[in-house]
Amino acid sequence: MKQKVHRLDPFFRPQSIALFGSMQEGWFFGAAVIISDLMKWNYTGKIYPVHPTARTVYGIPVFQDLAQVKDVPELAVIVTSFRHAPGILEQCGAKGIRAAVIVSDGFGEAGPEGKIRQEELLRIAKAHGIRVMGPNTVGVFNSESRFTTVPYDRGYEYAKQGKLSIITQTGMYSPQAMAWHEYEAGINKVIDLGNMSDVDETDCLEYLSRDDSTDVISLYMEHSRRPRVFLDALKKASLRKPVLCLLPGGSPGAAQAMASHTGSMAGNAELYQAALRQGGALRVEEYEDLRDCATPFLRYPLPQGNRLGIITFSGAIGIQAIDAAEACGLSLGKLSSESRRELSAVSGTLGGHPIDVGPASATAGAGIFDLYQKCFDILAADENIDCIYLNTYVFNGLKPAYYEDLLGRIGSCRGKPVVSWCYGPSQQLVCEFGKLAERHGIPFYLNSRKAVRSLSYMARYAHWKAVASGKPLRRPSVHPAG
Amino acid sequence: MKQKVHRLDPFFRPQSIALFGSMQEGWFFGAAVIISDLMKWNYTGKIYPVHPTARTVYGIPVFQDLAQVKDVPELAVIVTSFRHAPGILEQCGAKGIRAAVIVSDGFGEAGPEGKIRQEELLRIAKAHGIRVMGPNTVGVFNSESRFTTVPYDRGYEYAKQGKLSIITQTGMYSPQAMAWHEYEAGINKVIDLGNMSDVDETDCLEYLSRDDSTDVISLYMEHSRRPRVFLDALKKASLRKPVLCLLPGGSPGAAQAMASHTGSMAGNAELYQAALRQGGALRVEEYEDLRDCATPFLRYPLPQGNRLGIITFSGAIGIQAIDAAEACGLSLGKLSSESRRELSAVSGTLGGHPIDVGPASATAGAGIFDLYQKCFDILAADENIDCIYLNTYVFNGLKPAYYEDLLGRIGSCRGKPVVSWCYGPSQQLVCEFGKLAERHGIPFYLNSRKAVRSLSYMARYAHWKAVASGKPLRRPSVHPAG
Repeated sequence: MKQKVHRLDPFFRPQSIALFGSMQEGWFFGAAVIISDLMKWNYTGKIYPVHPTARTVYGIPVFQDLAQVKDVPELAVIVTSFRHAPGILEQCGAKGIRAAVIVSDGFGEAGPEGKIRQEELLRIAKAHGIRVMGPNTVGVFNSESRFTTVPYDRGYEYAKQGKLSIITQTGMYSPQAMAWHEYEAGINKVIDLGNMSDVDETDCLEYLSRDDSTDVISLYMEHSRRPRVFLDALKKASLRKPVLCLLPGGSPGAAQAMASHTGSMAGNAELYQAALRQGGALRVEEYEDLRDCATPFLRYPLPQGNRLGIITFSGAIGIQAIDAAEACGLSLGKLSSESRRELSAVSGTLGGHPIDVGPASATAGAGIFDLYQKCFDILAADENIDCIYLNTYVFNGLKPAYYEDLLGRIGSCRGKPVVSWCYGPSQQLVCEFGKLAERHGIPFYLNSRKAVRSLSYMARYAHWKAVASGKPLRRPSVHPAG
Repeated sequence: MKQKVHRLDPFFRPQSIALFGSMQEGWFFGAAVIISDLMKWNYTGKIYPVHPTARTVYGIPVFQDLAQVKDVPELAVIVTSFRHAPGILEQCGAKGIRAAVIVSDGFGEAGPEGKIRQEELLRIAKAHGIRVMGPNTVGVFNSESRFTTVPYDRGYEYAKQGKLSIITQTGMYSPQAMAWHEYEAGINKVIDLGNMSDVDETDCLEYLSRDDSTDVISLYMEHSRRPRVFLDALKKASLRKPVLCLLPGGSPGAAQAMASHTGSMAGNAELYQAALRQGGALRVEEYEDLRDCATPFLRYPLPQGNRLGIITFSGAIGIQAIDAAEACGLSLGKLSSESRRELSAVSGTLGGHPIDVGPASATAGAGIFDLYQKCFDILAADENIDCIYLNTYVFNGLKPAYYEDLLGRIGSCRGKPVVSWCYGPSQQLVCEFGKLAERHGIPFYLNSRKAVRSLSYMARYAHWKAVASGKPLRRPSVHPAG
């Protein structure tokens, strides 16, 4: 399904690209890294490397001057010293290029002289009608169109194509800073805005909200140049798909540091928070959340309420999970009397909630997987339960692989969101279990608290969307904490 | 240094032990597991296995009846069905044994009939003056005296001897539930109280507070049978060493679940919270904190205040670290003018706080370690900084091993608490860095937030202790959040 051409399309799926910067092969940074990646990704567009002295790069001829290129490339990527960037941008404009990713640093982030240089860049861009991403950025990593401008050797291949897209005002989420290949659910696009001199978070939010290959948008945002337009774009985007947002600088010290380090507006934390809430953004707590809390959205339909079901191997974990749940707006579901009856029929030690399989498992032996399965089926069928937290235990005598069938069956049950955590006397076995769960589509977390909290974003979003769109949930529930 | 004999000593360093239960070799649970472990640990006391039909276990002769044992064992460990436990306890009493770990379940935790059985046990214990740990417990794991009553095959050897001791009202922290061997700082004792029919958290807190081999006490506590005595013991213990506490059940749902699952008193969460605060306990957030937040206490002296120093590879992480710091009662330290001067002399892009080495590192090349070292030395010497958060970056071109010298030098600097986190495009490299940091004595965390939060407990404890003992800190600071 070919999408209509959007004015930002040249940044995400250009038919041709001109690259300016080091063409040194095998080095960890530079224009050559991008070229190598594009070739590995079988990029179908045309690649025009431009460099005054290089002759070829990875078998492709290098142009000594942009003027030698007959085509008008759709996108320019400038990976040179800041000294050369304005001249190159000028040439791009003259050539008719209308989009540029400026990787070069030494601009707005580098003090008063840098700010002046950045203004000069913008003047050139405006004169030629060029949209600019950056400077001081790695640009775009787009697994959907197999296109990238990231000039760093990531150190890993990236083959999969997921549905999570990220907009970020820091390089921290870019492919050379995060192990995206280890993220089982897969990413779609990562957009690093850099100094955000032109293309900003609002442009990209609007773009991604219409992007059919993006199901969830995550946003790391320190500030907005145009908060009102942003709020409007956020609302529209949130009605279409969930927008997770990490907004640092809520504390006075951080706001001050942001102002002095990146020029972000300080002291507006409360205003931003109000705007984000109003716009339906789901504010996450920390760095990893922009990835980890997106996962359940990518894998499950929205829950119909905030009533949590818990299956645990340890009573204590059940209790800790309830604390975690209530702290983030979920509540422990009250099992139907039928569910309680069915549970009691499975084992005399069952029937309560959280469902603590520990005591029953002591006598179940190899029947433990059947025990888990029955408990899960009961929660999955119970109308009073909207989402499920599953806790397990592994050790040498109960290896992760033994859970394979169970996880396959639970993973194939797609009606309600399920998340998991596992513990045991070997971190290696716990990791193995986590990978197995993820392979079967069940989000796995580092602890109960993170697992349960990730479900709370789904409940919160379902509630917000129902209210905002005037389409109430089938089973209205208590308003989750905002 | 031999400690005075304490009435609980038989539980922690008995001269002789009688074991009741399965003597089946090679099985993952039973009395034989304990015997095997004691032998591997070169336990120097006498081991008396008691079983009606077994002849030997791991080369040791088995007694058919306790009456055949000539000695009076200091401790009995009962790992049988609940049906046999009362009879065995009766025999122990008759023999003159005055301490028993009752592993058997099916008592207080198992409904009304179980409660009656537990009362019967207690009646026997009282009649003979036997102190009981449990039932429904794994008892004691004591690396200091190389003694254990844990009847589960842990699946790993445990050789080291640390200074962290844990008291728990759930088996979740026991050696078969946690990978204690992967905890670099090392544990001293784990005490699982089980149903806590007799020996309770107050007994053990009092014991550990006088235990020279314990430097930090962690406590997982759902309830206390005698809160006033507990508060008194807590205060005394806190004046000697930090007491970390996880108190679940703060939410109404969890309190209710606790009451129905374990008989803990519901609805007292606020009272407990007040008592813990008053008693100087450091309330942690989640499961892993009882271990991870203990680490800096084990490795560093207490900070003189709450002023945090930050060295980061990414400006965004610096900002997120400040948010995390201010949320938990730390504040970003104001660098002295000398520090700022020295930083500017290192690089034109330095001088502010957080210290963002990112821009300078871009041109530093292999000099990046020297850059880190200089920034660290400046923070370590600055009188306005009480503790330090260190963030680094690893990828294929900047492998963890390259940091070895730097981590060695930073790790040898013991004046102020230092914690660390690292990021990069490979989780494996990040883990390697973490292990390296830990080996050099620098606590490593899963993210900035956890790293910074762990420092906050040190600042909070230093403050509490200074106030409670009337010995003010050298550099009084803002009162950290309680």
